Amino acid sequence: MRLAVIPGDGIGPEVVSEALKVLGEVAPTAEITNYDLGAARWHSTGELLPESVLGELRQHDAILLGAVGDPTVPSGILERGLLLRLRFELDHHVNLRPARLYPGVRGPLADAGDVDMIVVREGTEGPYAGNGGLLRKDTEHEIATEVSVNTAFGVRRVVADAFNRAEERPRKHLTLVHKTNVMEHAGSLWSRIVEEVSLEHPDVTVAYSHVDAATIHLVTDPSRFDVIVTDNLFGDIITDLAAAVTGGIGLAASGNLDITRRNPSMFEPVHGSAPDIAGQGLADPTAAVLSVSLLMDHLGHKEAARRIEASVAFDLATRDQASPGATQAIGDRLAALVSSNTVRTAG
Amino acid sequence: MRLAVIPGDGIGPEVVSEALKVLGEVAPTAEITNYDLGAARWHSTGELLPESVLGELRQHDAILLGAVGDPTVPSGILERGLLLRLRFELDHHVNLRPARLYPGVRGPLADAGDVDMIVVREGTEGPYAGNGGLLRKDTEHEIATEVSVNTAFGVRRVVADAFNRAEERPRKHLTLVHKTNVMEHAGSLWSRIVEEVSLEHPDVTVAYSHVDAATIHLVTDPSRFDVIVTDNLFGDIITDLAAAVTGGIGLAASGNLDITRRNPSMFEPVHGSAPDIAGQGLADPTAAVLSVSLLMDHLGHKEAARRIEASVAFDLATRDQASPGATQAIGDRLAALVSSNTVRTAG
Ligand SMILES: CC(C)[C@H](C(=O)O)[C@@H](O)C(=O)O
Ligand SMILES: CC(C)[C@H](C(=O)O)[C@@H](O)C(=O)O
Repeated sequence: MRLAVIPGDGIGPEVVSEALKVLGEVAPTAEITNYDLGAARWHSTGELLPESVLGELRQHDAILLGAVGDPTVPSGILERGLLLRLRFELDHHVNLRPARLYPGVRGPLADAGDVDMIVVREGTEGPYAGNGGLLRKDTEHEIATEVSVNTAFGVRRVVADAFNRAEERPRKHLTLVHKTNVMEHAGSLWSRIVEEVSLEHPDVTVAYSHVDAATIHLVTDPSRFDVIVTDNLFGDIITDLAAAVTGGIGLAASGNLDITRRNPSMFEPVHGSAPDIAGQGLADPTAAVLSVSLLMDHLGHKEAARRIEASVAFDLATRDQASPGATQAIGDRLAALVSSNTVRTAG
Repeated sequence: MRLAVIPGDGIGPEVVSEALKVLGEVAPTAEITNYDLGAARWHSTGELLPESVLGELRQHDAILLGAVGDPTVPSGILERGLLLRLRFELDHHVNLRPARLYPGVRGPLADAGDVDMIVVREGTEGPYAGNGGLLRKDTEHEIATEVSVNTAFGVRRVVADAFNRAEERPRKHLTLVHKTNVMEHAGSLWSRIVEEVSLEHPDVTVAYSHVDAATIHLVTDPSRFDVIVTDNLFGDIITDLAAAVTGGIGLAASGNLDITRRNPSMFEPVHGSAPDIAGQGLADPTAAVLSVSLLMDHLGHKEAARRIEASVAFDLATRDQASPGATQAIGDRLAALVSSNTVRTAG
């Protein structure tokens, strides 16, 4: 396995090094190459993602990314020039974001119930397409536009993926989240494609929720969701909320997948670079470790993936929630659990 | 006072008649005209909002709306053809949505703290502009676009309004919610205008939150917010979430304001028509009653507005949360409280 690692900014390097400890336990022969993309490189060379680096990244089986973003860089530069550029160039159309409330974890809800959902967020179009502009800038007649671009091709491939995932889950339930009553055109395309693809999956039950209502359900009745499929922006919003509900972004993992496997998929914690706590051993590496589980799963190493997730689940059930330990201590614990292989894996 | 009332669909008529009971206590001489817009009219005549009716509505001081939407009407028809058309035709640029956790009310959060915020949601542009289309419909090359339109004129007037409101509140704190790191152009316009207008309000502190992070804060630390200003779509999403956090949309009121007063403003509960519980006396009219409080406030009857809100607060603090009573019973209680004027009003 050839793995490219982009530790990135802030707490990125800290959590990535714990994630690599755990990876070492399940894939000791993995070849790892580090790429120093992020704020420091931009400051010293002005580069965000040189073509040559992009070319090298393409030669790997997968990418592990820590976090991107730094207060010394104007907002949006690293996000669009590095993170989103990677997702778009590598055609990461399925942005996979599981949200599970693990036993022992206390989220902000008084009574969350049994939360175990995955969000399949479209990753390469929608309002993230970068289509838009400014007219008459800095005058009283200025106009700014942002165009959400949705293609049958782009929508169908994520909807198909979401149905495939729903099919493999016990509840076989899929919810389309959109805002069809207002976003008439995009809403129509998404609705029609969900209907079409559902014909190939008669055993998957299908529901629809407006995005505003979905945020209500996520805090009043999150266990109703099994698989959610949604566009890039709605997915961004509801996965942060789903992460909060299931114990915080410190635990939320994600995969940016090219389902066709033409390009390496990229795995990253949902959290950002958290510059305020960087370098102090305060960051929880659990989300990064769970991202390694998604990575192993995507590459076909299902048993290793399950072992990592089960170790995390065990640690979460037994750790002191108020003070789970320093970044390294948590990483050591998780690596030891994975290595000892004593944790029973379910399923 | 000339008041136009649109009871609308589902539970709309039920909650509106309780709201009018309460209104009767503070404005017994109000002239009320009912307009039968909604699903029934559309079914019988095909009409959504005839020009003549729109012309009549314009002759009123304010509009009270119950709810719009019915399962027998294709999704979007009534929303766009009636509700959004009213907001756009009547230039309701400030969509005002307070979210307050009243004493006695239990929301879904284990520990919400002291929540008392207002969201100033832009109401006449953004992704709600209805700008977009379908190309190559029903082919594999179909493309659907939705254009978010943001103008300096449109953004400045809501930002100015939000700062004015922040100025009048004890905390004098304003948060811009957007997604500037991705929606570069609209984000730039919104950020620059907030910065500009903030110069006229040196005593208002200003914060920024990405919309995804804002949903996290709304469930982990909602008391951080005082005034939020945001665009039409982000405002739609976070006000539903803020309503859920503060006890549900059964309690959430809103005003669609034309700050220039060239057109009547429109007041409506945030909840929808809830056809599943319509006609059974199960709907809580509190949101509609609080909308009357916003209406009175907007028309300059500050004392009446405060009396209604204080009565609601008293009722919420003393009612049996599990069974607050039937729609009419709640309305009777609130009307009696407002009439007796025994509830102390604060501020
Ligand atoms: C950093 C930002 C561009 C990114 C996004 O909006 O996709 C982040 O919020 C995420 O969810 O991964
Ligand atoms: C019904 C719908 C068009 C409306 C909106 O999106 O504005 C509603 O959700 C609201 O928040 O008032």
